[in-house]
Amino acid sequence: MGETEFLFALRALAVDPGARGFLDDAAVMGDLVLTHDMIVEGVHFLPDDPPEDVAWKLVAVNLSDLAAKGAEPVGCLLGYTLGSADWNARFIVGLQDVLATYAMPLLGGDTVRANGTRSFGLTAIGRADRAPSRTGAEAGDALYLTGTIGRAGVGLNLLRSGQTGPEVEAYRRPRPRLAEGRALAPLVHAMMDVSDGLLIDAKRMADASGLAVTIDLAAVPAAGNTLEAATAGDDYELLVAAAPDTALPVPAVRIGQFAPGQGLRLVEAGSPVPLPPSLGWLHA
Amino acid sequence: MGETEFLFALRALAVDPGARGFLDDAAVMGDLVLTHDMIVEGVHFLPDDPPEDVAWKLVAVNLSDLAAKGAEPVGCLLGYTLGSADWNARFIVGLQDVLATYAMPLLGGDTVRANGTRSFGLTAIGRADRAPSRTGAEAGDALYLTGTIGRAGVGLNLLRSGQTGPEVEAYRRPRPRLAEGRALAPLVHAMMDVSDGLLIDAKRMADASGLAVTIDLAAVPAAGNTLEAATAGDDYELLVAAAPDTALPVPAVRIGQFAPGQGLRLVEAGSPVPLPPSLGWLHA
Repeated sequence: MGETEFLFALRALAVDPGARGFLDDAAVMGDLVLTHDMIVEGVHFLPDDPPEDVAWKLVAVNLSDLAAKGAEPVGCLLGYTLGSADWNARFIVGLQDVLATYAMPLLGGDTVRANGTRSFGLTAIGRADRAPSRTGAEAGDALYLTGTIGRAGVGLNLLRSGQTGPEVEAYRRPRPRLAEGRALAPLVHAMMDVSDGLLIDAKRMADASGLAVTIDLAAVPAAGNTLEAATAGDDYELLVAAAPDTALPVPAVRIGQFAPGQGLRLVEAGSPVPLPPSLGWLHA
Repeated sequence: MGETEFLFALRALAVDPGARGFLDDAAVMGDLVLTHDMIVEGVHFLPDDPPEDVAWKLVAVNLSDLAAKGAEPVGCLLGYTLGSADWNARFIVGLQDVLATYAMPLLGGDTVRANGTRSFGLTAIGRADRAPSRTGAEAGDALYLTGTIGRAGVGLNLLRSGQTGPEVEAYRRPRPRLAEGRALAPLVHAMMDVSDGLLIDAKRMADASGLAVTIDLAAVPAAGNTLEAATAGDDYELLVAAAPDTALPVPAVRIGQFAPGQGLRLVEAGSPVPLPPSLGWLHA
């Protein structure tokens, strides 16, 4: 049973409607929103990444899932694999920083030893009166994006080439759009965060909603090359489907449109643009 | 920052009262009970352990934490590190089995790849009208145990010596005392599960409650040698402090008594018994 089959098998077990078929950013149980992400050394972070930033990112990416469901943070549980004394101490500094920044209470968790690869897990719990799913986009809806994409990708490239710049911070310390998510949730038809890349995530929303989506690259606020930015991950902006006449309460740019049909199409200044070979970051 | 200091630092961050200072089996938030346990290859399970049993145990130990707070399971989130195709398929079988046995909905989670040691996390969420803590034992309370201890320890010894027997099942497929926990919760002063060994866990309850506890070894229902059983872990019975005149609604044996003071004392047929060098399984 490979990864794809395993995920299908998990979905088959997740019969509770709150699981949303494992296809949404988070599970929803009454007014509770629940999400769990794991990060693995050598895969999601490197042994020489600053531990403060690893802690920040672990919490921030889970908070971004809450933001995508319009939820307010109510608590988290941490699964931690012990490292060196210095690593542990620096992780605590970053953890304290991110928890305080987003008023996220630490409620519990587990601390373990490992003789090899370390990994961490975080469960974030939030509360939302109404948690929009990815599946609710309607034909005729506009697609909106809350900020600039591609900054994290630029930051990663800087790091890889041994350089630095303000975008490194965007990569290492993403800022979940919690306030924006809460303001948008009551007004939108569908919402998700952009974690793997704008194109792949927009296509996921369209697929989940049984619709086609067209993105106008000229409209996308991007750092650097637009097509590169649109396929880079780790930006954690919000992607929203809403009726085109809805007045959105937070800054968001209209970048596309849903229509009957299926698939993703790109245009730029009215002309079709071929899809790039990869729409984003595919990962387990 | 070593393990002990790290745990102190985490506790200092866990200021929310629901975190219970990281000293209880689970966090409590309103009527929600939340717990997260991780297991690591080579530490908590071995690569050649049956994957079905690894899945069972991962879920069962978290359910036992819910049981200890009198909670009914409402959902769980799984953090899974992919293994071989065969391992994945067999894990799913065990997962399906344990989720169905305890009517535990799978709500979400994350699946990752690792290039080395694999680890798994499970977050279990339950609901309880009243979740007794470990801290509530009162002087004069009796200490009760819901079943026989030491069976898992006997099972582990059988496995280590290449033998088999009914106790192997007790070790590999612990049975969380969910029904018992729910029935006991409204009536008791303190409750916890016995995961690391009867002696160490009883001492923890006494310490948390600011009391001394005396256990009568002659009264302890044990598989094999009583002192060995009382220091073996993985039994997942419930340990309860209740007024001695409380009629308990489920089978439980009175094995000791709380009194003012501190520490753990052992007696057998009225005579003091020296404490063994290790009271149970200490682990991260």
